[in-house]
Amino acid sequence: MKLYDFRPSGNGYKIRLALAFLGLAYECVEVDILSGGSRTPEFLRMNPNGRIPVLELDDGTMLAESNAILFFLAEGTPLLPAKRIGRARVLQWMFFEQYSHEPYIATSRFMRQHREQTEDVVADLQRRYEPGVAALGVMERHLSEHEFFVDGTFSIADIALYAYTHVAPEGGFAIDSYPSILRWLDRVRAQPGHVAIGAAAA
Amino acid sequence: MKLYDFRPSGNGYKIRLALAFLGLAYECVEVDILSGGSRTPEFLRMNPNGRIPVLELDDGTMLAESNAILFFLAEGTPLLPAKRIGRARVLQWMFFEQYSHEPYIATSRFMRQHREQTEDVVADLQRRYEPGVAALGVMERHLSEHEFFVDGTFSIADIALYAYTHVAPEGGFAIDSYPSILRWLDRVRAQPGHVAIGAAAA
Repeated sequence: MKLYDFRPSGNGYKIRLALAFLGLAYECVEVDILSGGSRTPEFLRMNPNGRIPVLELDDGTMLAESNAILFFLAEGTPLLPAKRIGRARVLQWMFFEQYSHEPYIATSRFMRQHREQTEDVVADLQRRYEPGVAALGVMERHLSEHEFFVDGTFSIADIALYAYTHVAPEGGFAIDSYPSILRWLDRVRAQPGHVAIGAAAA
Repeated sequence: MKLYDFRPSGNGYKIRLALAFLGLAYECVEVDILSGGSRTPEFLRMNPNGRIPVLELDDGTMLAESNAILFFLAEGTPLLPAKRIGRARVLQWMFFEQYSHEPYIATSRFMRQHREQTEDVVADLQRRYEPGVAALGVMERHLSEHEFFVDGTFSIADIALYAYTHVAPEGGFAIDSYPSILRWLDRVRAQPGHVAIGAAAA
């Protein structure tokens, strides 16, 4: 398998984490999204929506959207519940991640790291603050009563939410005041096979 | 089953469509999200993220996130491919819908219908226009070569994308210039069991 990715991306990191936990070998192809690498005609043939990560399977099939790739990799493994309602619950948290968490917590991190801090960017960051805090609140309440997001077992729902939550401070979201999130981050870090998020290529 | 819903919502409509296509009976409980009905303590016990739709199963289990509910309902039916890569591809398009389509096309419709058109709201609508057009472009290119989104077969990926695309003009997105989208909308409308989106309760 080949993973088209940008190392500092949390969305790409989700796939690197899952592949590491599953012990699967793959080749990593770095795409410089900052200089338009994910909007070239070649890249758009792989993913018409112009975003990393993209997973290329051994038969040449291209799969996009980080959480769809996670689901594909996890089917039939301990990272996805065997019961129908468990799979749906995992998806519930993964759609929560893409709709209510990523656009605030991940996008704020990207904007702080890669955009000039103009008045417009600062105003945009301010608009993203409150919904990001709300997402962390939803996670904290759930984790105050559960070790992991679904069925008390480590799954791709945890991987999807870990990817950007553990670097939330880089987006301006302090997480010290969320004790249940902090303990859960430690539990994810302690899973056998855990790897760290990447830094940008030099 | 009980569906907690707000009739004009496209996210709720996805579930009503799937239940109609599958011929499943359910009770509908209208939640007035405009007056805070999805943020009451009772509602937050059903979905801590405070959003409709929520599906209550016969054993009392609560499931949230429209596309997770769709997946739950569709497993083992013709609305979800039997092959692993097909299921992943359906999820790819459903994550596209929630991340790259809904926040622009659906949110613009909601803001035009339910918010006072202040300067801030108009500026917010303007920011949401270009990404919405980009999402329609991705759909048009795909549909120019495919009858339905995945494997040439009607699936929950089509239901998820139909819900807000067919009312995109209510959000300020003209769809007359997307011939492949228009033909696909007709194909979805022609599926046996199709029902229309609801109007707000009087």
